Amino acid sequence: MNSLRIIALVFWMGMGAAFAQQVTPTSQSNLLLTDKGVKDYTRLLAEKPTSVQEIAQIKQKIDAELGQPIQVPMPKDAGGGYTHEQHKANQLSIFYGGILYQLTDDSKYAEHAKNLLFAYAKIYRTLPLHPEKKEQTPGKLFWQSLNEAVWLVYSIQGFDAIKPYLSEEDRRYLKADLFQPYVDFLSVDGAETFNKIHNHGTWAVAAVGMAGYSLEDENWVKMALYGTAKDQSGGFIKQLDQLFSPDGYYSEGPYYQRYALLPFVVFAQAVAINNPELKIFDYRDSILIKAIYAAIDLTYGGFFFPINDALKEKNLKTSEMVFGVDIAYSITQDPRLLSFAKYQGNFAPIDAGFEVAQALSEGKEKPFAFQSKRFRDGEKGDQGGLAIFRAESEKSNSALVYKYTAQGMGHGHYDKLTWLFYDNGEEVIRDYGAARFLNIEAKYGGHYLPENNSWAKQSIAHNTVVVDEKSHFNGKYSIAENAFPTELSFDISNPDFQWASAVLKEVYPGVAFKRTMFQIQDPAFEYPLILDLFEVQSEEQHQYDLPLHFNGQIIYLNTPLAANKSQLLPLGKSNGYEHLWNLAQGKAHEKLSQFTWLLKDRFYTWSTKTSASDELIMVELGANDPDFNLRSERALILRSQGRGNHYFLSALETHGSFDSKNELTVNASNQIQSLELIEKGGKKYIEITTKDAGSRSYPVE
Amino acid sequence: MNSLRIIALVFWMGMGAAFAQQVTPTSQSNLLLTDKGVKDYTRLLAEKPTSVQEIAQIKQKIDAELGQPIQVPMPKDAGGGYTHEQHKANQLSIFYGGILYQLTDDSKYAEHAKNLLFAYAKIYRTLPLHPEKKEQTPGKLFWQSLNEAVWLVYSIQGFDAIKPYLSEEDRRYLKADLFQPYVDFLSVDGAETFNKIHNHGTWAVAAVGMAGYSLEDENWVKMALYGTAKDQSGGFIKQLDQLFSPDGYYSEGPYYQRYALLPFVVFAQAVAINNPELKIFDYRDSILIKAIYAAIDLTYGGFFFPINDALKEKNLKTSEMVFGVDIAYSITQDPRLLSFAKYQGNFAPIDAGFEVAQALSEGKEKPFAFQSKRFRDGEKGDQGGLAIFRAESEKSNSALVYKYTAQGMGHGHYDKLTWLFYDNGEEVIRDYGAARFLNIEAKYGGHYLPENNSWAKQSIAHNTVVVDEKSHFNGKYSIAENAFPTELSFDISNPDFQWASAVLKEVYPGVAFKRTMFQIQDPAFEYPLILDLFEVQSEEQHQYDLPLHFNGQIIYLNTPLAANKSQLLPLGKSNGYEHLWNLAQGKAHEKLSQFTWLLKDRFYTWSTKTSASDELIMVELGANDPDFNLRSERALILRSQGRGNHYFLSALETHGSFDSKNELTVNASNQIQSLELIEKGGKKYIEITTKDAGSRSYPVE
Repeated sequence: MNSLRIIALVFWMGMGAAFAQQVTPTSQSNLLLTDKGVKDYTRLLAEKPTSVQEIAQIKQKIDAELGQPIQVPMPKDAGGGYTHEQHKANQLSIFYGGILYQLTDDSKYAEHAKNLLFAYAKIYRTLPLHPEKKEQTPGKLFWQSLNEAVWLVYSIQGFDAIKPYLSEEDRRYLKADLFQPYVDFLSVDGAETFNKIHNHGTWAVAAVGMAGYSLEDENWVKMALYGTAKDQSGGFIKQLDQLFSPDGYYSEGPYYQRYALLPFVVFAQAVAINNPELKIFDYRDSILIKAIYAAIDLTYGGFFFPINDALKEKNLKTSEMVFGVDIAYSITQDPRLLSFAKYQGNFAPIDAGFEVAQALSEGKEKPFAFQSKRFRDGEKGDQGGLAIFRAESEKSNSALVYKYTAQGMGHGHYDKLTWLFYDNGEEVIRDYGAARFLNIEAKYGGHYLPENNSWAKQSIAHNTVVVDEKSHFNGKYSIAENAFPTELSFDISNPDFQWASAVLKEVYPGVAFKRTMFQIQDPAFEYPLILDLFEVQSEEQHQYDLPLHFNGQIIYLNTPLAANKSQLLPLGKSNGYEHLWNLAQGKAHEKLSQFTWLLKDRFYTWSTKTSASDELIMVELGANDPDFNLRSERALILRSQGRGNHYFLSALETHGSFDSKNELTVNASNQIQSLELIEKGGKKYIEITTKDAGSRSYPVE
Repeated sequence: MNSLRIIALVFWMGMGAAFAQQVTPTSQSNLLLTDKGVKDYTRLLAEKPTSVQEIAQIKQKIDAELGQPIQVPMPKDAGGGYTHEQHKANQLSIFYGGILYQLTDDSKYAEHAKNLLFAYAKIYRTLPLHPEKKEQTPGKLFWQSLNEAVWLVYSIQGFDAIKPYLSEEDRRYLKADLFQPYVDFLSVDGAETFNKIHNHGTWAVAAVGMAGYSLEDENWVKMALYGTAKDQSGGFIKQLDQLFSPDGYYSEGPYYQRYALLPFVVFAQAVAINNPELKIFDYRDSILIKAIYAAIDLTYGGFFFPINDALKEKNLKTSEMVFGVDIAYSITQDPRLLSFAKYQGNFAPIDAGFEVAQALSEGKEKPFAFQSKRFRDGEKGDQGGLAIFRAESEKSNSALVYKYTAQGMGHGHYDKLTWLFYDNGEEVIRDYGAARFLNIEAKYGGHYLPENNSWAKQSIAHNTVVVDEKSHFNGKYSIAENAFPTELSFDISNPDFQWASAVLKEVYPGVAFKRTMFQIQDPAFEYPLILDLFEVQSEEQHQYDLPLHFNGQIIYLNTPLAANKSQLLPLGKSNGYEHLWNLAQGKAHEKLSQFTWLLKDRFYTWSTKTSASDELIMVELGANDPDFNLRSERALILRSQGRGNHYFLSALETHGSFDSKNELTVNASNQIQSLELIEKGGKKYIEITTKDAGSRSYPVE
């Protein structure tokens, strides 16, 4: 890889200039808050104090701590427990203490950060591994080394800011007794994680690299950039090359894209400050900036698409995205980014953050118009992708997410060619996300729950076809990680007729999937219409299940189901089916099964071509869940038995309104009356007959 | 009743002066929009056009209709169906058409309203009863006469506003062919409803009374005020006497209080304008103004407490409350009311509304601080009540609602001495409200669903004791309507220690209930603490169930339950139990059962004194619900078998936070470790032992 070689070369030259080899770090601050930021803050405080009110809040928080004795407890608890949360609180106190010292020049803040750092220096070297290690590589202060790296990313910034306050002796002591063993723990003891091309690796290299800049240790910086062997077999540059697709999509998906961004952008910013000649933000066609924009595009209403292992409560307001947006603005000066900074309501207390505060105080923000977009997956962009169809207008704000990405490493789900749909501020067709209560000790210590494997990752938990009640690739990661969907087409050139099509062979032995999803804007429909053609190819006969994980209150089904009124049994025995109660079951409609539900004040109707030999099953999540770990959500499953080659043709209509204020209901029933796949002149079309606007047909690629 | 006699007397004198007896109504407008309102609007439009933007929206809506042919279809559909919604739309078009004519002096608006009124005049006299009559007294345009009255309340205001535009001939024709038969239908054919002391009666008398003022028919006004017999055996004055308690509480509860308010206040306003000497807003110690304030107090986050038959989506933004708030402001000039007008975001297009628009444009609004308050129930205030405990502070915004009201007529539930709890913007301890999809035809024609009787009204659907799996009074309305709880005490003098206590004898044969609920603010607890002492008196042995309808994700239970992992059965056979799936069951803790759940970002722990012979049952709603009419919600039931005299002693703690943005969890576990009812010096105390702050005891009245 040429670009990497060039960076490497430039770097070795640059390093020599940056620091002389020395044992004791100087009093020079080298990280993200510099004199420029301090000056910006001082000016804003004088001229527009409300624009930097956040600093007053940080001050209030730290001032409240100053009277209290510091607490650096012996590590004991897992995520969410007291010692875990206390060490996390301390990393912020060190960070904020340093920042406040720089901003106010008041030594009490530096003293506070110093006292905390000294308390850690006293214990760190001899600390054993954390007693609660489980499932993950352990840390010392924390149950997993990931948290250990995060601690250093924050604390080193606090240390860096109080360097001018510390004596030479102090600096030497902290390096020797805290940072050296800390860096050794992350990079020597934790070499495997450190060199991994994975978000845990990014946190580790950012921590060690930033420590290297602040403590002026060239060796640490080199390890951070090129791996412990310093031979480019690991490290930051390789992560930039491999963890993002050429479109800036992070292979683990949006939830971890957000999480991984922080170490990427803060370390890159440190590199940019200390080794500007590396032009790190230009690297790989500005891949980091692309990744920040991608994270923004992978949201609806501010919330990240919950594909793969993902907690649904995460949105663009998280601190990772605050740092990301501020640093991206500082690099690009794109005024649309300011609209997100405004939504976030705060800024990072670093140079880039003060730049954003200044720009916001001048009213420079511009709206960000979300548009249809596709993110290719894979280092080379050839491992499928994620297509997002948006139709933002005064009336409509829907988003169709069609996921045909690669597996996405260990946090990936068996959800090939699945989809989600958002509208009216809500998740209408859902993805369960992860089964986990992060940091709630009473819930399996805050870990991923057993139900994350038994339910959330299974294919039936997603809106895709499940063959013979087994998950894709039979739920085997070793097969899944090497199976990539291929995009056949993606076309958004006509705003009224956009689509994406992808195929994947051998989702099961001898079974291939092809799915084409369309977003259509047609005056016959009130809102954008979604069409879905799911083709299954197989010479053998199988059972095909197509679940629809809808969100809302069931209003109408055009074919009666026999409800299991007085006894519920699980739908199956394994692969997630054991978690589904079978609420009701019946024959599908002989031509077109239609299902209407209500969510908030809008109706949704799913129409799907069926025959009388198909079945519909209404299910609810919650069976075999003795600890009540799962949310009780419903889905409608379309089941086709004994099929070889087969296709599912479906449409989703958004319609009407339920205005409870004025007690008016409009268009509670839908438009589509028939749905057919036809051929004309050797070309396939989807033909739709509507109630009020006759027939129309749409070409299939 | 003296005050009534005085009003009656004054009135007969006043009427003569108001109108001479005449057949054809004059061109004079007599209802809620007068020259004063028109002048206010004209001035605001010139000076502060944004303050009356709403009129521009109304104009836009009506302008869009002007090009279209009018639609007055033959009545056919039930609530939510096309003809139902079209006639509702027309009532607003007539109303708005009239208003716009007055405000703009543009005759096209008057013409539009006139055309609609003429179309109705053409058909009304010969219209048969509505074909979809069901459960309720039928209307002609609508399935129930209630909607028929509502139509007239709006349409008569439109007619009134275009009177100056209409010829004498037009007015005579509309009176003879539309309003006379309409009034006859409501007051002669519908005499029973008309004379009823019930919200349906209020709509009917308001409709007829306003028609009387506008069409200058003294007889109609008299009927409206004193009943069809004009002997005070029915009518508006009697409704004012009997439908509200002395505190302004409406006997059917907040949902219908809101609904009933509109005809009360608009008709009262018409009375005030046409017969000011009646001083209608002063009547019965300003009962109507009290009722408007009560409606405001009976909300949380703007939403009405969903007790009795109530749809949860109703809030202070409904048009009834817009009219209510505007008219109340016009009478009281209380600037706190303006804060609700601002929250509503619009005003009624009548004199009072323009007064509010003016005041808001001058920034006159003051915040409304909700406080603990009790509303007595019953005409004389001696039929129990509803106590609301609030603790509004920077940190806390909870509300405890303790309901010990009378039955509340036919829409009442068998929920004696139940409670609800709100916090952090959410309903934490829930009431199901009504089982109904108002105006959604596919859901049982928009009627109350069968499950409203089989589930929503039953005792087990509420947070109160259920004896032997039967509902209170065995679910018999004839018994329930005569059984009123008695308030023993209500004390809010000490903000840190507030309580209410009530008793009810013969809830079941030989079984009496007494419940005392406390709201305590104590530094040992982060948030207000709720204590609950529920005493059951009975010489016979029974089974007592105490359900807790919690809202949130189950986090922790201190005693293991055996989950029904692979088969669910209903908990019982009748009285609502048939709708509950038994998810898990087990022995209660031998001393104190504790249950923690998470809602949004906060934890809640219910602690309840138990013995090892008690049972806990986790249930989920949804059994025997073949049409998916019920929401799937969970509850925890504490079951005590073979008990005579018995008490349940419980506490609800709000604690901690789950900050997903910063991934910090604080105080996920609660404070209470033991809970006892003790006696000291002949007085009862509730003694609590906490983890961090030792013991404390609170006196029980």
